[in-house]
Amino acid sequence: MSDLTITTISFETSPPQYRHWGMEIDGERATLTMNVDPSGGLRDDYELKTNSYDLGVDIELYDATQRLRFEHPEVKVVVVTGGLERIFCAGANIQMLAGATHEHKVNFCKFTNETRNSIEDATANSSQVWIAAVNGTAAGGGYELALACDEILLVDDRASSVSLPEIPLLAVLPGTGGLTRVVEKRHVRRDLADAFATRTEGIRGRQAVDWGLVDEAAPLSSFGDLVDERVAARAAESDRPDCGPGVRLEPLDCTIVGDRIDYSTVSVGIDRRAGTAAFLITAPDAPQPATPEELIDAGAGAWILRCARELDAAMLHLRFNETAIGTWVFRTEGDPEAVAATEQLLADHPDHWLVREVRLYWARTLKRLDLSARSLVTLVEPGSCFAGILAELVLAADRSFMLDGTWEDLDDPPPPATIRLSAANLGWFAMSNGLSRLQTRFWGRPAALEAAESTIGTDLEASEAAEAELVTFTPDDLDWDDEVRVALEERNSFSPDALTAMEANCRFVGPETPETKIFSRLSAWQNWIFQRPNAVGPDGALQRFGTGARPDFDTRRV
Amino acid sequence: MSDLTITTISFETSPPQYRHWGMEIDGERATLTMNVDPSGGLRDDYELKTNSYDLGVDIELYDATQRLRFEHPEVKVVVVTGGLERIFCAGANIQMLAGATHEHKVNFCKFTNETRNSIEDATANSSQVWIAAVNGTAAGGGYELALACDEILLVDDRASSVSLPEIPLLAVLPGTGGLTRVVEKRHVRRDLADAFATRTEGIRGRQAVDWGLVDEAAPLSSFGDLVDERVAARAAESDRPDCGPGVRLEPLDCTIVGDRIDYSTVSVGIDRRAGTAAFLITAPDAPQPATPEELIDAGAGAWILRCARELDAAMLHLRFNETAIGTWVFRTEGDPEAVAATEQLLADHPDHWLVREVRLYWARTLKRLDLSARSLVTLVEPGSCFAGILAELVLAADRSFMLDGTWEDLDDPPPPATIRLSAANLGWFAMSNGLSRLQTRFWGRPAALEAAESTIGTDLEASEAAEAELVTFTPDDLDWDDEVRVALEERNSFSPDALTAMEANCRFVGPETPETKIFSRLSAWQNWIFQRPNAVGPDGALQRFGTGARPDFDTRRV
Repeated sequence: MSDLTITTISFETSPPQYRHWGMEIDGERATLTMNVDPSGGLRDDYELKTNSYDLGVDIELYDATQRLRFEHPEVKVVVVTGGLERIFCAGANIQMLAGATHEHKVNFCKFTNETRNSIEDATANSSQVWIAAVNGTAAGGGYELALACDEILLVDDRASSVSLPEIPLLAVLPGTGGLTRVVEKRHVRRDLADAFATRTEGIRGRQAVDWGLVDEAAPLSSFGDLVDERVAARAAESDRPDCGPGVRLEPLDCTIVGDRIDYSTVSVGIDRRAGTAAFLITAPDAPQPATPEELIDAGAGAWILRCARELDAAMLHLRFNETAIGTWVFRTEGDPEAVAATEQLLADHPDHWLVREVRLYWARTLKRLDLSARSLVTLVEPGSCFAGILAELVLAADRSFMLDGTWEDLDDPPPPATIRLSAANLGWFAMSNGLSRLQTRFWGRPAALEAAESTIGTDLEASEAAEAELVTFTPDDLDWDDEVRVALEERNSFSPDALTAMEANCRFVGPETPETKIFSRLSAWQNWIFQRPNAVGPDGALQRFGTGARPDFDTRRV
Repeated sequence: MSDLTITTISFETSPPQYRHWGMEIDGERATLTMNVDPSGGLRDDYELKTNSYDLGVDIELYDATQRLRFEHPEVKVVVVTGGLERIFCAGANIQMLAGATHEHKVNFCKFTNETRNSIEDATANSSQVWIAAVNGTAAGGGYELALACDEILLVDDRASSVSLPEIPLLAVLPGTGGLTRVVEKRHVRRDLADAFATRTEGIRGRQAVDWGLVDEAAPLSSFGDLVDERVAARAAESDRPDCGPGVRLEPLDCTIVGDRIDYSTVSVGIDRRAGTAAFLITAPDAPQPATPEELIDAGAGAWILRCARELDAAMLHLRFNETAIGTWVFRTEGDPEAVAATEQLLADHPDHWLVREVRLYWARTLKRLDLSARSLVTLVEPGSCFAGILAELVLAADRSFMLDGTWEDLDDPPPPATIRLSAANLGWFAMSNGLSRLQTRFWGRPAALEAAESTIGTDLEASEAAEAELVTFTPDDLDWDDEVRVALEERNSFSPDALTAMEANCRFVGPETPETKIFSRLSAWQNWIFQRPNAVGPDGALQRFGTGARPDFDTRRV
């Protein structure tokens, strides 16, 4: 595998800076047109021809999904279409994949999957319905982008097809949700799905409708009318407001100096020897919006929105740019009352469009945390504010430590740390498995769940939090430093692969959903393939693609 | 990775031949004592010290699970214990794993997982309850064997612990169901499961009970009494008969000559160029038992039991000994009426212990088929007998072809092929996902499911079978040969890794169960790890284990 790495990847962008997407707003309808700049790749050893994409293209798409929700409350339907002649999208760029490190391939697939889940989240929970207007060939990741939309409309022109040619052409999976969504979301019969996913040329027109691969097909002459008709029908069902104003997502205030990353509410300190990134999240220290109107006025400056954006940005930065930092340690600082007061707005006005967006954004951000291939450790110390929303960081952790008592040596010791659950912990933020983090924690133990839930609103000191089974270990001042240090050092000494796999198994107990299937079953198999010579070896399909030479396959089955 | 391969692995054994297990029957209780012969490994480059195991040890365990069910109807409780001083079982042998090919590791793990699922199946469905009497240290696969039992009793002697040291010691997962069963079956809290699975020395006595890792712990002095008490309690709940006779599982009649394998009802022809194994299953041609008593008299000679055993044996042989044969093609031959008549006994007497065993064995055998990493193609031709039980082979296939019409060129053309569903297809044979193969096929499409189910008892010719969506393609005589040949050739040209991964995603739609989680989530991640240098590279943990040198880990996370 090549060592062509990208130095630092930034996730900050905005529509005027887009190189690959057009975003046009027309009342209740937004149109996102994919028009990839071939020379706009993140590395310079490939060209993004025929609307193929790399991470940079997807970073813009992710930015668009966020802005459409926050900046354009009036947009009820988003139409995704292709801007090239006869091409909707050709999928992930093969030269990019062939030259990428293993961890970049895996992280790239995870991020693109998360963005497609965001598209489904917008449709399902935010009443902003995505429709794919497939006006040309949609291959591989191109069809997978369409699959993330709630409706797929295909031009019927004897040329345009949908296809998943990864297996026959590249010896890898359609790993951006493709196989999962075909059988689990569109309910394509498994033998037809098998035939489809091994057919390089894909399926066109009427047959694509018959097999359930698309919803409707129409000739070019009436394709625009079909799209208009579907947009109108879906817009009529939406409960989004008819006009703005929205909330502008201003660029984040971020300073990276050496091994420190500072946002306004989130800071991260990296310790390379220890392999840790220490997150510190600070509670609001000024009055926060108490009504939806005040929230709109405060906009991206409101702590509740700012903090989610900063946490999201910090995680993405660390995932891609700091792969050797294997453990993320979470601390908080500030007044738990301030956190509780801030989130009260979210409890009081769940149906207001912006309140809903903020809650859903926290849900997606916390999901991204669960899905990060890093060990998660939360430290609950005096002066912290693990209340409500921030208590999710305790529940999301692979392991948590809570100081029993206070720092004995201080002249003026602070009061002991507390944890306080709130309504926010009862289901505002479902994990990928569809359960709250509390439900996940007590999976199969209803009495323990009920006992934990009954503490809502109560400040729990360490012994009470341990009694309610909310924390893992509760050392006192005498043992704290050693116990935490040894745990982190030990973690850093283990194989990161084994930890990643273990965490993927322990974090998501209970029901599986299409989302968890995409991140475990589909992605785990894809990660395996991304290590197999048949795909990534010098004679494998990814290297041989486009050379005219056929790959050499080891035919042994496992 | 070493190329130390084992030439031909046989799965045929019986208690007198066991080298590693003692099996003692005492009325309603059987005791299986693990006492692994260190020099009895399948390869000679490792010693099976401290009750560590390789495939050969597990082949005997699988044989025991089968014989206890069929030969010992009076056995209501099976106690598994260790025969060495202070050691229950040390898990899979590390030198064996370090020297095994990738496909052997993967196949070994799959088979051991299937055997542990059989143990759970005996407990849940056959009223033969397995209890682990952990009378010494149970490490890794040793504890995983205990986890497959319905109760885990641990001796509390300040030395005996249960542990999953794979991650800290070996950089691989507890992949024989360990992580899954800890959190999904025993409902150990995820942070405690994380702490447990990273603690080399494991957990002992009372703490193991408190964390939910075992059910009860007792000092050595009263351990025997505890086991006796639990055996008596569970035996009292069992609905198995109080005495025999059982049915002896005589050695299978099998001839392997060149590329042909012939059993009495199953034969397999291997075409190495095409990469196919052609299964032919023959319907009974003599009267079969019509009552449970006749079934007991016929014993292992009854077609319905013989055919399951032969299919099971053929699949295991091909999985381990013919890894480069990537496609299994299924045909049947004989009278559909004979199949229907034979299975009528299973419909009429579901509660008879032996009838129940036969049905459950078919269910496990068909599950093994679903879980085989081979492309499955079923050909429905004139003269075939895809009725009821055998129609499951159509539903299990990744793709099926049914001849529309008959062979036109024959002087005396046979009648067209038919498929006939029966009660057997409505839930006798649940897949790992808990659904019947019909329910899986029509997942999310209740009307189509109902339409297919309404054909029960009707002989469907090709057009009707296609209308009921039971088959994939229905070429006529003119196209048949080419279409089937091209499909098989094409399949053989694809990367077997990509096919394996695709099949693992398409076959198991809908709900996930602990079983599917073990075979997809857990196993897929383990397979990935089994390719990663941190585990299997020359400086990885498996090679370095026992050398005194620490492994060198690449710390980059994905």
